[in-house]
Amino acid sequence: MSQKKYSLRYLAEFLGSEFIGNPDCEIAGIGSLASAISGHISFLQDSNYKQYLNTTKASAIIIKCKDLEQNQSGNFIIADDPYLAYAKISALFDDTPEVILGTHATAVIGEGSEIASGVSIGPYCIIGRRVIIAQGARIDGACVIGDDVGIGENTRLCSNVTLYHKVKIGKRGLLHSGAVIGSDGFGNANEKGVWRKIYQLGTVIIGNDVEIGANTTIDRGAIEDTIIDDGVRIDNQVQIGHNVHVGAHTAIAGCVGIAGSTKIGRYCMIAGGVGITGHIEIADRVIITGGSNLGKSITESGGIYASGIPAMPHRTWWRILARLINLEDLMRRVKVLERKQL
Amino acid sequence: MSQKKYSLRYLAEFLGSEFIGNPDCEIAGIGSLASAISGHISFLQDSNYKQYLNTTKASAIIIKCKDLEQNQSGNFIIADDPYLAYAKISALFDDTPEVILGTHATAVIGEGSEIASGVSIGPYCIIGRRVIIAQGARIDGACVIGDDVGIGENTRLCSNVTLYHKVKIGKRGLLHSGAVIGSDGFGNANEKGVWRKIYQLGTVIIGNDVEIGANTTIDRGAIEDTIIDDGVRIDNQVQIGHNVHVGAHTAIAGCVGIAGSTKIGRYCMIAGGVGITGHIEIADRVIITGGSNLGKSITESGGIYASGIPAMPHRTWWRILARLINLEDLMRRVKVLERKQL
Amino acid sequence: MSQKKYSLRYLAEFLGSEFIGNPDCEIAGIGSLASAISGHISFLQDSNYKQYLNTTKASAIIIKCKDLEQNQSGNFIIADDPYLAYAKISALFDDTPEVILGTHATAVIGEGSEIASGVSIGPYCIIGRRVIIAQGARIDGACVIGDDVGIGENTRLCSNVTLYHKVKIGKRGLLHSGAVIGSDGFGNANEKGVWRKIYQLGTVIIGNDVEIGANTTIDRGAIEDTIIDDGVRIDNQVQIGHNVHVGAHTAIAGCVGIAGSTKIGRYCMIAGGVGITGHIEIADRVIITGGSNLGKSITESGGIYASGIPAMPHRTWWRILARLINLEDLMRRVKVLERKQL
Repeated sequence: MSQKKYSLRYLAEFLGSEFIGNPDCEIAGIGSLASAISGHISFLQDSNYKQYLNTTKASAIIIKCKDLEQNQSGNFIIADDPYLAYAKISALFDDTPEVILGTHATAVIGEGSEIASGVSIGPYCIIGRRVIIAQGARIDGACVIGDDVGIGENTRLCSNVTLYHKVKIGKRGLLHSGAVIGSDGFGNANEKGVWRKIYQLGTVIIGNDVEIGANTTIDRGAIEDTIIDDGVRIDNQVQIGHNVHVGAHTAIAGCVGIAGSTKIGRYCMIAGGVGITGHIEIADRVIITGGSNLGKSITESGGIYASGIPAMPHRTWWRILARLINLEDLMRRVKVLERKQL
Repeated sequence: MSQKKYSLRYLAEFLGSEFIGNPDCEIAGIGSLASAISGHISFLQDSNYKQYLNTTKASAIIIKCKDLEQNQSGNFIIADDPYLAYAKISALFDDTPEVILGTHATAVIGEGSEIASGVSIGPYCIIGRRVIIAQGARIDGACVIGDDVGIGENTRLCSNVTLYHKVKIGKRGLLHSGAVIGSDGFGNANEKGVWRKIYQLGTVIIGNDVEIGANTTIDRGAIEDTIIDDGVRIDNQVQIGHNVHVGAHTAIAGCVGIAGSTKIGRYCMIAGGVGITGHIEIADRVIITGGSNLGKSITESGGIYASGIPAMPHRTWWRILARLINLEDLMRRVKVLERKQL
Repeated sequence: MSQKKYSLRYLAEFLGSEFIGNPDCEIAGIGSLASAISGHISFLQDSNYKQYLNTTKASAIIIKCKDLEQNQSGNFIIADDPYLAYAKISALFDDTPEVILGTHATAVIGEGSEIASGVSIGPYCIIGRRVIIAQGARIDGACVIGDDVGIGENTRLCSNVTLYHKVKIGKRGLLHSGAVIGSDGFGNANEKGVWRKIYQLGTVIIGNDVEIGANTTIDRGAIEDTIIDDGVRIDNQVQIGHNVHVGAHTAIAGCVGIAGSTKIGRYCMIAGGVGITGHIEIADRVIITGGSNLGKSITESGGIYASGIPAMPHRTWWRILARLINLEDLMRRVKVLERKQL
């Protein structure tokens, strides 16, 4: 249970919502309908789970107006989108430790860097030359920031983030531990079998309100820059190649790999484990389902694309696989049959 | 060759096994049957490789009783499971450098933390407030440990591990470099196209005897905790989403991704590169073969599941792919033929 | 625009190429034909893009002799392989910040280590005992290097690289941030359901001119060593298991996973997201296309292998998937038809 407590009335006002029940009901945490205990607020997003209303131990529930029975007893906050309301309330119960403002004595800061007021820089950070860190930014311990980097207002780097030289990050960003931004793109030219390095002369430009997951990597551009637009959400262990452009408000789930020079539209959703080839373009609002491999451009906005095969009992799959590998033979036999029919 | 040396008798006693041959035969390392040199001990797990017994240069061999010919000359240790016996002996030849006990002068330790006796904390570690580190734990250099973390007895964090606040790790654990435990789960609610962060209020609870590979990430729970039970083995570059529960003694190979809120049973084996969707349950003792995508729950324990397609010459594959994409047409043509037959 | 400027004559001489036009034309950067501005040099690799020659704002172009029209005006450098020429020139415009030679005062260096002249060791590096670092090597800040490691001449470790004990790296290597070399291989023997650790007694040996991407992991060998030969290029987020041998001049793109004890030939190209099973051998000059799963050995050199399925509209894919899962039924029906024909 959190040490933070809010009254039902406070939470409703915070959301700009109406409420039913005891305005002084004290909420000290969030729980799902099934797991909530007394003192928790919960939410009912999907009307199919209405039966949980009878058994939940939550002290209050965020609910759509239409799911509320007449004369239902209890404490409720009315919301069009209870899941979104839950998301907003979750911020009130966030227990991420606060840090001490100022620069830790052990941080190494290169010459010409400008650290604004209200910034926190943790122990053993290494900050290069001519780095600009804007007001309210929080650089947790052991981050390494290269020369000429810029970090916008209220952006947080969790511990052990690495930013190479010249990377720019906008405002209100959140980069999780182990993220590496601005490493060299995979550029190699072949000379009689031997790879010659193509030096990567661009950098990475990240917009405002971008969240980047743990151990995600984003390579710097070969000639121009790799660009992540405003509001993009990237999960853990994602790899984004050089020169990629990710459009605003696109979400990219874990373990996705995007090869170089691909341009992804705005408001796209790319599910876990997707692989996207290089040098293609994806239109806005495209959804790609988990485990798919995208091999060519999608020019029409708004579609859903897939190629993943769901696992099944292995003997079944092996039989199917044997048939698949002999599809040509099956096709030939059908042709023979068709010819006989004529 | 290791600087550690053991007599054949010592090794047999260590294993609780019988031996044949010279009890004073000195063993200074381990080799495979094919590559062993004099002074090595080797093992024969699979009777199909018995011919190697004639050519190996190993000074001693761990062998099943049934694979031993009558009057065979040489030095042997008898074991029901030579591979397991090899595993046990491998600990004797481990050359992981020992560390100096105590806390390095450069480690930063927050107030209220309790470091037990016999603990080693390396240079440039950053340890938060109210952290409990139990006896015999080893925290290698440059680890970052958040507030309110707990680390059990004899657990080792290799260099550059990051633990976020409130993460709990049991006894005898081993976390490899670059592992990030407790980063935010990928929780976002959509408000008119814009993602609103869902603050992640749970943490990660890891049991005893758990090994976690290099650059693996395990996200903290959204509301409740992400849980890794006792004896779980996780390889490198694995991503485990928020609220996931991995049952005891399950093994997860490299590059696996497990989406949020999925529950995996005990004694499962998940091979490399598998993707597992969110919000499903997998029964105990299930095996998932490499490169498969698991999309729905498995309720029966003990099965093997697959969906990976093995690579083949690309022209063959492209022909099959063309047929696959036209499977509907083939089906239609078979229907036409069937109708004509009637 | 870079602060570095070179005359057209200088660049041509640097390449050993002929040039046409104004020898004093000043080049201060590189741009693609489409994006170049005045002062940039560009290149035309593919004759299909010749129309860009009329519109590009580049001040000079690297071009094949055959693509040059008679009496064409402008500044040109003639090259057999303009892309390779671009790669070579890119080194001249590299803006990776230079470092101060010498060992930063905060670096911790274990006893018995030998640091050659002309080496740079950044802040908060932790270097073990008996480490040998050869002339011209550059160890950026916050790297952790275990005991008995060897690093060859002019090799660069970017920030936050971790090398476990005994790892050896050749000359002119480049390891990107977050790379972990020498972590334990995933070795476990099962004893009545419980995993027993197999201690990993080998190490990792990396040749000359090897580049390793950000957050890539290479495990140490179980008994012998994991080996990466000369000239290998490895992208980000690649996982290489224990005992793997990667042959010289092979390139491995992002998110590839290679399971233990597999041997990959020389001059191979492994595209993004490929999964390769353990204990197999791949011949020289083999190409594996993106998203494929390789399950068995390839004994013939030079082929191209594939098994990835390109994503398509999800309704189409689901229909195909339904047919695929019923392939056995289709086969049976074709057999019935064939029997009736007889």
